[in-house]
Amino acid sequence: MRRTSFANWPCSIARTIDVLGDWWTPLVLRECFYGVRRFDEFQQQLGIARNTLSDRLKRLVEVGLLEKRVYETQPVRHEYVLTASGRDFFPVLAALNAWGDRHLADQDGPPIVFHHTACDHDGEAEVVCTHCRAPLHADDVVPRPGPGYPARLLTRPDVRARFHLDDPAPAPES
Amino acid sequence: MRRTSFANWPCSIARTIDVLGDWWTPLVLRECFYGVRRFDEFQQQLGIARNTLSDRLKRLVEVGLLEKRVYETQPVRHEYVLTASGRDFFPVLAALNAWGDRHLADQDGPPIVFHHTACDHDGEAEVVCTHCRAPLHADDVVPRPGPGYPARLLTRPDVRARFHLDDPAPAPES
Repeated sequence: MRRTSFANWPCSIARTIDVLGDWWTPLVLRECFYGVRRFDEFQQQLGIARNTLSDRLKRLVEVGLLEKRVYETQPVRHEYVLTASGRDFFPVLAALNAWGDRHLADQDGPPIVFHHTACDHDGEAEVVCTHCRAPLHADDVVPRPGPGYPARLLTRPDVRARFHLDDPAPAPES
Repeated sequence: MRRTSFANWPCSIARTIDVLGDWWTPLVLRECFYGVRRFDEFQQQLGIARNTLSDRLKRLVEVGLLEKRVYETQPVRHEYVLTASGRDFFPVLAALNAWGDRHLADQDGPPIVFHHTACDHDGEAEVVCTHCRAPLHADDVVPRPGPGYPARLLTRPDVRARFHLDDPAPAPES
């Protein structure tokens, strides 16, 4: 089923995708944010095959997004609880959801709305720049090799072209 | 390859996932944001099988995230250009990237940094509430059925429990 591993690509998008494994995984995480913890309830809510669910839960435990806990000892039964890094995935789902609301909702409007208890209003998710707090748009962002980018790749012409490293001006409009 | 269609689920996360099809798709979109437009360049940058790439590009055109344009007529050659809804997917990739930077970067730090030309600073992506502008955390968000949620489902006990519709208080802590 898995074809290519993106784990070692110098890109946090690819690495995140590699951790998730496939598209069932974000839906399993979605269920966690709805409060689901038990195998049968995940299975029932998602209509997912039991072996697929079992694989995805195992993967999420391995990569540290879920913790498997005993909640009953006779017989032993487990539940799956979000860890701190798992909880931190919520904004990614919220950003996915906001895009879907804008581009895939039918004429009735969004299927789900989010009530933000912190401000006691319904809100949407918006992705902003941590520095200036303005919404991030593709046109305003230029990716650059960061401290974790492999130095050996930076001599390659295709990599230098990708990041416009030899351009006189900042990044050109494409 | 595709198993279950999420297209008709009353959830914009599931619908977005259905549009994408599989995890290659966000990486193809990533390449678009790097300025890639031509089949061979997608293929070279991603190391993706040509038939898989062909499928994913076709899907992205069908669902309106990419436009296929003729850029040369003798012989006819095409390029793939982000549409408005395709460009609007950038914040989702930025949110994925930020999570990966926080949880998957090695000790050297993030492989890629984003320069935000709008404020001329390097920035991270952060997901905020459109109403109060505070960062969105899972603990502060309660999902509710929205205007596009199918009314027929709202009588089902499992759906009512999922959204805490019969609870006396607001949503309980899980």
